[in-house]
Amino acid sequence: MEAASIVLFGATGDLAMRKLYPALFNLYMDGKIPSTFSVIGLGRREWTDEYFQSHIAKALNAFSRRKPDETLVREFVQAFRYCALDVNNSEDYTRLKELVVQREQQLGLAGNRLFYLSVGPEFFATIAEQLIQSGLGETAGWKRLVIEKPFGRDLASARELNEKLSHFFSEEEVYRIDHYLGKPMVQNLEVLEYSNPVIHALWSNRYIANVQITAAETVGVEERAGYYDKTGAIRDMFQNHMLQLLMMTTMHLPNPSTPEEVRRKKKSVLESLRPLQPEDIAAHVIRGQYQEGVIAGQAVQGYLDEPGIEPYSQNDTFIAAKLWIDNHFWKGIPIYIRTGKRMQEKSTRIVVQFKDPMESYNDPRHTTAEPNLLVIEINPNEGISLQLNTKDADHPGQFVPVRANSMTHAADMPEAYENLIFDALRGDATFFAHWDEVELSWAWVQPILEAFEANALPLYTYKSGSNGPEAAHELLGSDKWWLDKEPEVEAAGEKLQEKLVQI
Amino acid sequence: MEAASIVLFGATGDLAMRKLYPALFNLYMDGKIPSTFSVIGLGRREWTDEYFQSHIAKALNAFSRRKPDETLVREFVQAFRYCALDVNNSEDYTRLKELVVQREQQLGLAGNRLFYLSVGPEFFATIAEQLIQSGLGETAGWKRLVIEKPFGRDLASARELNEKLSHFFSEEEVYRIDHYLGKPMVQNLEVLEYSNPVIHALWSNRYIANVQITAAETVGVEERAGYYDKTGAIRDMFQNHMLQLLMMTTMHLPNPSTPEEVRRKKKSVLESLRPLQPEDIAAHVIRGQYQEGVIAGQAVQGYLDEPGIEPYSQNDTFIAAKLWIDNHFWKGIPIYIRTGKRMQEKSTRIVVQFKDPMESYNDPRHTTAEPNLLVIEINPNEGISLQLNTKDADHPGQFVPVRANSMTHAADMPEAYENLIFDALRGDATFFAHWDEVELSWAWVQPILEAFEANALPLYTYKSGSNGPEAAHELLGSDKWWLDKEPEVEAAGEKLQEKLVQI
Repeated sequence: MEAASIVLFGATGDLAMRKLYPALFNLYMDGKIPSTFSVIGLGRREWTDEYFQSHIAKALNAFSRRKPDETLVREFVQAFRYCALDVNNSEDYTRLKELVVQREQQLGLAGNRLFYLSVGPEFFATIAEQLIQSGLGETAGWKRLVIEKPFGRDLASARELNEKLSHFFSEEEVYRIDHYLGKPMVQNLEVLEYSNPVIHALWSNRYIANVQITAAETVGVEERAGYYDKTGAIRDMFQNHMLQLLMMTTMHLPNPSTPEEVRRKKKSVLESLRPLQPEDIAAHVIRGQYQEGVIAGQAVQGYLDEPGIEPYSQNDTFIAAKLWIDNHFWKGIPIYIRTGKRMQEKSTRIVVQFKDPMESYNDPRHTTAEPNLLVIEINPNEGISLQLNTKDADHPGQFVPVRANSMTHAADMPEAYENLIFDALRGDATFFAHWDEVELSWAWVQPILEAFEANALPLYTYKSGSNGPEAAHELLGSDKWWLDKEPEVEAAGEKLQEKLVQI
Repeated sequence: MEAASIVLFGATGDLAMRKLYPALFNLYMDGKIPSTFSVIGLGRREWTDEYFQSHIAKALNAFSRRKPDETLVREFVQAFRYCALDVNNSEDYTRLKELVVQREQQLGLAGNRLFYLSVGPEFFATIAEQLIQSGLGETAGWKRLVIEKPFGRDLASARELNEKLSHFFSEEEVYRIDHYLGKPMVQNLEVLEYSNPVIHALWSNRYIANVQITAAETVGVEERAGYYDKTGAIRDMFQNHMLQLLMMTTMHLPNPSTPEEVRRKKKSVLESLRPLQPEDIAAHVIRGQYQEGVIAGQAVQGYLDEPGIEPYSQNDTFIAAKLWIDNHFWKGIPIYIRTGKRMQEKSTRIVVQFKDPMESYNDPRHTTAEPNLLVIEINPNEGISLQLNTKDADHPGQFVPVRANSMTHAADMPEAYENLIFDALRGDATFFAHWDEVELSWAWVQPILEAFEANALPLYTYKSGSNGPEAAHELLGSDKWWLDKEPEVEAAGEKLQEKLVQI
């Protein structure tokens, strides 16, 4: 990997502290970034280099997945400099440029520059423009622009943003972070099929009955009420993370492959995704909003009672959808996707349910057999498991399912941001969202956004600590969501009550 | 299940104490035998009923997989009566008959009689004849004959024995025990394919590269030197247990199925087994004999130094073979079988290695990928595992194998004899060896027996605690035995030395 300067906008912010500094440090520990590197941190506040460096050291102690060694931390923070900057002030960029060049010369760096925008999306275009106009983009090495989500809030705004950025950075230079793509088990989806003959043999509608992608959180809106209440699960999770998981699961990558091939195959999945006509939306999409309830023994308040939420907010904190991929691999089998806050259990997972050749036989004992399931657990555990039927030793002729599980301890695996920063530095765009994917995702989601805004769909409520609204279960017809745990309210014998929010 | 009398020959013996009484008791605990049942124990010694019953209670305390409840044991042993018997004395059978009938009347049993021969094979024919001539076989209910191995010591002797038995009991009445068929994970092989669509899809030479069946023991000949030195691994393990595992793994049972269908399919596997011509044997069969070595940190002596072994014994304590099933499911892929004493690890397992479509690609990083493996662990653990490739998080482009495992604690699973006695009592012969299987097994093995006797094959030695002779690894050519642990002698850096025993 070539040495590079990282120019970090938002260096005093929460994401930098919790994720970016720990990621850089763990890469440094593993020798996965060059020992001479430069990070220029930018923020509005007036910090000294020393204060910045001690801030980073604190962040590492609090958030590094592996315990940081003190000597190594002292060495590591030497690479960091701070520069106060107003993103709209071109003189500040001139000062920044001087600092970047000075550090490049001091450290003998070849002029490779990674501009990391850990700031609100309203600043993306301005910063990109200022970077180019200040001459920071003119460098002997490469330049790359890393941007965080959200990339637009609908199809039109995403197109507008992309159009602006494209004046200053080419598509090949833009690295759009979708941090789900950095998670180790999601990255494994790239090779899962082509490196595993048994998966390859099974990976189509010939053997698969349906695919279920779940991203359930137990947390509520937390500190982000203002942002979230205008965003909802559809924009915050579904359009980006969930559709990325869908693409990664179903893309059928050939081997050998390339980053370009990954992007081509992912794009092809979205192109094959059956568009929802306005009249189909109610039968394919369920939106929900959490009410008060109990999670891990704690009473939690309903969405409408959270501070910062509009009193009669119609915002979705849950969404479930049934999708169809009309290509020859997946035609005819449903893809179920759901995501929600304040759910029973924190779990991001992909469950592949296989077709059951026994289902048509009339032997009643066979009803004790369950479908074979391949489960890819993404968060909080990482693992792959396969559910098979075995004989029920106690009841001749009956079956019991067994799960063969692999498990990996989270602390032993690189965090998403380690993988993504590593890839951005070495110029591998495989696990970043290409504009084509972003645009096609927004295009597919757009009719749903419009239906939500027009209140053309019911907004179902669900108890905090449940598995979402009952309607999300009915959406599946004779299928079911696998591996849901029993909600605590249910376990306590209380019937989960649901009603439509009065509009 | 109908109530029955069990007439047990060899009631004072080791097998009865260690396996049969604990099995009956655990069935009793689970309500899997009728609460009124009768067991008449037979032996040469003059025991009283009381002594017999206390002997059984002791056996349960020592060998039951679940802790026996004292009250339940007292209740259980009430069903047992003892009768001293000389197997050649017809008057003893008359007395026995009176006792059986008396107990049937006392308990209101319908006259179903299970004759269990836990005695040496030299007594099988005599006992069968006496049972019939005494009139014990004339009963209002069913009669069944359960016999332990060995069933013959070659093709001719097995045929002779069967011919004799067939005068007195029909094939449908004979239950030949192969206790490997009673092991829960072997019984699972019956349903593994038809109850699991993902296995069904993969279960042929289209996806499978080879099948490896291993039964490794760490023990030596123990107390059985006299018997074992005339028997060897080929007769003691290979002809029966190993070929049964082969049949169970490859039989392709349809669903729904019947015991008759199981037997038909198993027979069909043996009929498709490519016969070994004398000139092919050396290239397909490896025999070995253990030398001294180290197992679990303990030095152990070589086979020739074991008490009771002939000084220049050429007996095989290890055998490995490469077999071919010439039917359309398995044609072209080798089946590797091996069994041995004094091996590195106690393990009975079936490893199915899948074909690797990546093999032929030239990317050197792909060499870090391993074949997919489906592993069925039979003993001492019971479980199914699947080995898949995942990304090596530390080395981009490389792979690391992960194993998804299911595990079952042995104490929670019925022992082999529980399953087998339960099946014999309810008349399900699925997991017993049919004469057709026994005869075809001996027929296939016969040329190997003759080659061994003629010393037409080398007898390789192997260190105790190793994974068998090097020749057994070379037998596989470019394949390898999977999941072998490193031998302790190897781990200590000592080169495993081999030489041919001087003939």
